[in-house]
Amino acid sequence: MRFITAGESHGKGLIVILEGVPAGVPFDILFINQELRRRQKFFGRGERMRIEQDEVEVISGVRGGETIGSPIALLIKNRDWENWKEVMDPFNPSPAPPLTTPRPGHADLAGAMKFLSSDIRNILERASARETAARTAAGAVCKLFLRELNIEIWGWVEEIGGIKANYEGMEKREIKKKVKDSELLSPDPEAEKKWKEKIKWAVKEGDTLGGVFSLIAENVPPGLGSYTQWDLRLDGMLAQAVMSIPGIKGVEIGEGFSLSSMSGSEAMDEIVYKGKRIVRLTNRMGGIEGGVSNGEDIVVKAVMKPIPTLRKPLKTIDFSSFKESVAFRERGDVVAVPSACVVGEAMVSFIIAREIKRKLGGDTLLELKKNLASFLKEVRKRYG
Amino acid sequence: MRFITAGESHGKGLIVILEGVPAGVPFDILFINQELRRRQKFFGRGERMRIEQDEVEVISGVRGGETIGSPIALLIKNRDWENWKEVMDPFNPSPAPPLTTPRPGHADLAGAMKFLSSDIRNILERASARETAARTAAGAVCKLFLRELNIEIWGWVEEIGGIKANYEGMEKREIKKKVKDSELLSPDPEAEKKWKEKIKWAVKEGDTLGGVFSLIAENVPPGLGSYTQWDLRLDGMLAQAVMSIPGIKGVEIGEGFSLSSMSGSEAMDEIVYKGKRIVRLTNRMGGIEGGVSNGEDIVVKAVMKPIPTLRKPLKTIDFSSFKESVAFRERGDVVAVPSACVVGEAMVSFIIAREIKRKLGGDTLLELKKNLASFLKEVRKRYG
Amino acid sequence: MRFITAGESHGKGLIVILEGVPAGVPFDILFINQELRRRQKFFGRGERMRIEQDEVEVISGVRGGETIGSPIALLIKNRDWENWKEVMDPFNPSPAPPLTTPRPGHADLAGAMKFLSSDIRNILERASARETAARTAAGAVCKLFLRELNIEIWGWVEEIGGIKANYEGMEKREIKKKVKDSELLSPDPEAEKKWKEKIKWAVKEGDTLGGVFSLIAENVPPGLGSYTQWDLRLDGMLAQAVMSIPGIKGVEIGEGFSLSSMSGSEAMDEIVYKGKRIVRLTNRMGGIEGGVSNGEDIVVKAVMKPIPTLRKPLKTIDFSSFKESVAFRERGDVVAVPSACVVGEAMVSFIIAREIKRKLGGDTLLELKKNLASFLKEVRKRYG
Amino acid sequence: MRFITAGESHGKGLIVILEGVPAGVPFDILFINQELRRRQKFFGRGERMRIEQDEVEVISGVRGGETIGSPIALLIKNRDWENWKEVMDPFNPSPAPPLTTPRPGHADLAGAMKFLSSDIRNILERASARETAARTAAGAVCKLFLRELNIEIWGWVEEIGGIKANYEGMEKREIKKKVKDSELLSPDPEAEKKWKEKIKWAVKEGDTLGGVFSLIAENVPPGLGSYTQWDLRLDGMLAQAVMSIPGIKGVEIGEGFSLSSMSGSEAMDEIVYKGKRIVRLTNRMGGIEGGVSNGEDIVVKAVMKPIPTLRKPLKTIDFSSFKESVAFRERGDVVAVPSACVVGEAMVSFIIAREIKRKLGGDTLLELKKNLASFLKEVRKRYG
Repeated sequence: MRFITAGESHGKGLIVILEGVPAGVPFDILFINQELRRRQKFFGRGERMRIEQDEVEVISGVRGGETIGSPIALLIKNRDWENWKEVMDPFNPSPAPPLTTPRPGHADLAGAMKFLSSDIRNILERASARETAARTAAGAVCKLFLRELNIEIWGWVEEIGGIKANYEGMEKREIKKKVKDSELLSPDPEAEKKWKEKIKWAVKEGDTLGGVFSLIAENVPPGLGSYTQWDLRLDGMLAQAVMSIPGIKGVEIGEGFSLSSMSGSEAMDEIVYKGKRIVRLTNRMGGIEGGVSNGEDIVVKAVMKPIPTLRKPLKTIDFSSFKESVAFRERGDVVAVPSACVVGEAMVSFIIAREIKRKLGGDTLLELKKNLASFLKEVRKRYG
Repeated sequence: MRFITAGESHGKGLIVILEGVPAGVPFDILFINQELRRRQKFFGRGERMRIEQDEVEVISGVRGGETIGSPIALLIKNRDWENWKEVMDPFNPSPAPPLTTPRPGHADLAGAMKFLSSDIRNILERASARETAARTAAGAVCKLFLRELNIEIWGWVEEIGGIKANYEGMEKREIKKKVKDSELLSPDPEAEKKWKEKIKWAVKEGDTLGGVFSLIAENVPPGLGSYTQWDLRLDGMLAQAVMSIPGIKGVEIGEGFSLSSMSGSEAMDEIVYKGKRIVRLTNRMGGIEGGVSNGEDIVVKAVMKPIPTLRKPLKTIDFSSFKESVAFRERGDVVAVPSACVVGEAMVSFIIAREIKRKLGGDTLLELKKNLASFLKEVRKRYG
Repeated sequence: MRFITAGESHGKGLIVILEGVPAGVPFDILFINQELRRRQKFFGRGERMRIEQDEVEVISGVRGGETIGSPIALLIKNRDWENWKEVMDPFNPSPAPPLTTPRPGHADLAGAMKFLSSDIRNILERASARETAARTAAGAVCKLFLRELNIEIWGWVEEIGGIKANYEGMEKREIKKKVKDSELLSPDPEAEKKWKEKIKWAVKEGDTLGGVFSLIAENVPPGLGSYTQWDLRLDGMLAQAVMSIPGIKGVEIGEGFSLSSMSGSEAMDEIVYKGKRIVRLTNRMGGIEGGVSNGEDIVVKAVMKPIPTLRKPLKTIDFSSFKESVAFRERGDVVAVPSACVVGEAMVSFIIAREIKRKLGGDTLLELKKNLASFLKEVRKRYG
Repeated sequence: MRFITAGESHGKGLIVILEGVPAGVPFDILFINQELRRRQKFFGRGERMRIEQDEVEVISGVRGGETIGSPIALLIKNRDWENWKEVMDPFNPSPAPPLTTPRPGHADLAGAMKFLSSDIRNILERASARETAARTAAGAVCKLFLRELNIEIWGWVEEIGGIKANYEGMEKREIKKKVKDSELLSPDPEAEKKWKEKIKWAVKEGDTLGGVFSLIAENVPPGLGSYTQWDLRLDGMLAQAVMSIPGIKGVEIGEGFSLSSMSGSEAMDEIVYKGKRIVRLTNRMGGIEGGVSNGEDIVVKAVMKPIPTLRKPLKTIDFSSFKESVAFRERGDVVAVPSACVVGEAMVSFIIAREIKRKLGGDTLLELKKNLASFLKEVRKRYG
């Protein structure tokens, strides 16, 4: 399984080609569009989210309500393309005055240096987080596939602007419910209130915020990933996939950085039998030991930096004149942590789907289900 | 560029094949062996480190004191192989009584389930952190290559057992010196003392410790990695590479998780000119913006969980009897954070080396140097 | 560099995403559309070629008349989509009666077994040679890139229906001219006449024809590909790329199978100096020695089997009834060798472009040109 | 599954790391060594084959007589290493006078230009066909794996020095027997006699010969490879794998180039039922339709050029002096077609093994066998 996206933020649209989904997966386009909307509609997101109401158009890979094994191509049109046609013209040699004042924190300067570009627009259009709409669509298809295997992947926001949600002792089911009802994917309504206040403050100040989110994959079979080679470890794959989301600057598996202050006897997830079935007393390792899924929930946490486009002027340079300047502004959000969480779900869904297929094979959902059942039966017979 | 390792912890030895190093890189075997020793010899490491004095044997890829462009194969013999010959016999169908009590925190149970193995030895031998000796050797070759381009990669320990090093305000050069002189890669002699106390305490208690380390890559050219596709982003690649080290449960780029409580105006690295040369006022992004290196130092931080093999008994199961039990012990260390830091240097060196080659091409060091100089000249001409 | 295509033969259209083309390559859409038309318009192609007049729509990756380094997505709409909307409906669970009589020589049966499909349409829509329109578009972009480096890739038809073109002693320039003027890419007008006769005969008989074509890449620098690992050899890459074109059953490099009856002294391309410049007396090896380009023209030949959809009924089975039957017919061509030759040009262009980028690096055409010039200067200084 | 080799022809030895073989495959080292000997011992091979008696040393991945899922590393020592120690010294900056007269037909010149090398020894040592010993070892392990699934891969020589074997009408079983008994893998004892005469003639003349060989994979399940993307087609993968063998200049699937003179009605493999089981009346497509295995024998043919090191002097240049010269000679064979056939078996075995694992998954032989049986049951139920 692989996927590849294309498309500029203000171009015609975004495309994703997702390959390797087994044939026979029911294709629920409403679900996919709903995931796209989940990515867009959170408290504190900017005006663009009101302009764009993302919807996928199925170009290929689906027929008769099911995947057919061919590459799935989905197109998400940019609704304000008409307004950008001239600026983004593929053929006019000077479609618009060049942008030459790179915004700190964006790809602008690093990207311009990479591609020796004299117009930052050529960089920011692709480096824009809008690209994650295409990832979300691909991830939604992976979710459709995984839910046929009873695997569910979801997430919540842990922290915005330094304010943490408190949900200690809350059961997973309740967390899930609270998160579903929240405008900011919060498991803690009190925190949500504070986050909104903080967001309003940031809007007023012309500033932006970051935060932390968690991702969980439930009912993942043991044995995904491998300790046998560095690039086959599931934790490494997840780290890459989540770190690759724009704005992410840190990724943890399980307890992550807090493990540094525990001793070995405090940190490990002891194993017991409960009626000949394996039970873990804790899940500090986040469901992965030795780079391999161990049958517990897989838990990934990530931090998103504050959005680097802000109204408050940041110092920068103008490379057309070699003079100092202030960064230009594009329309932007104040906080995007809940959206990044939705994209995180998509990326984790892709990795789990890919590794399930690698372990169990199967060009069809039918085969894959049988192979999974047969594997789990062996596991239970041998280990409990 | 790619590398692949093989070898069991108590087998004949470890092998690494590293492919794609340009021809013409001076091959300094003393340096490579020194890196292997750096990985082994830290305060608090277990008895095995005294048995094994790793050294590479060059099998291929080097002639006349230089790399020749062919795959470089390095063999690190296991010095206590003679004592393990019978247990590890490739051909005897029952070489030793099976291990059936998986240690929590290790690959033991997850790996046994993956490979439906009735003997945990078949898992732990490969899942052992000893494999990182081979990575260290590969990374040392990458370092030899990178130092020809004046790129240096090194690291230090931030924290052991919850005690943090304090080196605020210290210059990089001084940090480097202090770290070099430390038995635990500490930039802070006070912290080092406390770490030693804590380690002695853990030895006494039969417990183990984890910690945090930092990695830095100096003089990396801008333009490595790309925002254009999720799997081309440099931050994602680094996250995978570092997370893939046994025991690592979290990875940060730059300020990482502390960015969550900063506002946008606090977090970004503003850009100014100093004599027509670009200067950043800070480096909170850790040298990567939009998934692309921006010319600043690349900074990666990682957390290592406490070592999961401890003398204090951990609850586990015996899957041969479906009864509860306690985990068996292999010889082990109390803390391995400094060693993991050395392995981290190796992994970062590999990724930077690979991405340099991807951006600049060059089958020979000569070509690559020219291509780099020519690229940097363009960058400076255009952006300062 | 990589590319991936999606799309069904009678779906909405075909998409290709091509990644890794350097920034700054002039984007000549007329040339691309002309290549698409070259693939379609040959004597003997079926009615569909008259329906479809392929044109690309640029979705991304191009701005201001140039590539910008982002993934290039091109959409080729299927012009008769309106007529197939119902049959190809992604959502209607039974869009059309299933096809259950697999055509020998097509993917029909092998594909149905792979995907356990009860309707061959789900297979043939993607397995159709129409997919090669997307490859042709990708290849055309690669040609645009390569021509900036003065590398040209073109091809001609050697043989149709067992009748060979005779162009012995003809100069390359003349071959190129003749081929350009031919309705069947023939370097030999006499052969072309006979091919047309044979095609007319096949139309009358309800039969189909195959043939052989040649591909040439001129001015390819030495040093592409590598002998150092099996999967890095240029000949292997070209063999995969060309064999992957639907209908191709054999690939040769240089003299290919005729080398089997030569002795070593007859077969090798001797090397001499002509004014301190290396000259080869022959090019039987087709420009590749040891899996590496040697600076001579790269020459690849391929055979295409006759088109497996014919009017004459072929024996097959009906797997809905387990009874014998005859294969159904889709609209089809009588011969597609010239079209396959155009696709072959595209595939060779992609491989050469990818390997140029691998050897020389360069995110921009500017860098790449400099790196190439610098490499060639070294080569000439050392070897002549 | 992947494999990577390292090692120079006159270095310490050759190494192969093969990754992804399922756990639980019986490891028959005698078989592997026998395959190595098959590669070496044919009529007409040079003196070196008498010096080297290749044997593998198992470094990793095998315990208790079985594969354990870890990477399998095999070392083949070079027996005349002692004699080459000085010439191949990794550390001595001038280990031997440089070779500067490239042999036409070898990687010598192309490789020297690639790596800007002033000593051809740095090229030829790795470009040597001796590397195929490591491939043969990897392929032998794949054969051990495949025979557990009742898949067998073998080959024979079709033609040497322009003289073809004639075995028309011979049953596969008889061909296999004849080939096994032949000193040159010939199914035709008469041809074998003529080949020996021709070889003796070539020895006398100081010349060399090439030829053609065939490879067959029996009992391959349908559904390997895919028509869905160019790089997933089984025919393309096989073409790359076989073309990557040193000296190979052409690859055919099934009838290959002879299909060019057949009409569609003559070329296709019609399908009938025989007691509700699918039967093909012919196998001209060589078991692959649409890039997918169709359940018939997979048949691949390849041509090997004459060995380019001959006693008769070939014209070449001396790039140290820019003067014309004659090519130097290394010890060499007169013909290596039977050996290349053995290597071809290895490469096809690897590709089939890899694609079986991709389709069916399975980290253990146990799982894989179940998954295969379950898939084949579905196929038979649906299609016969």
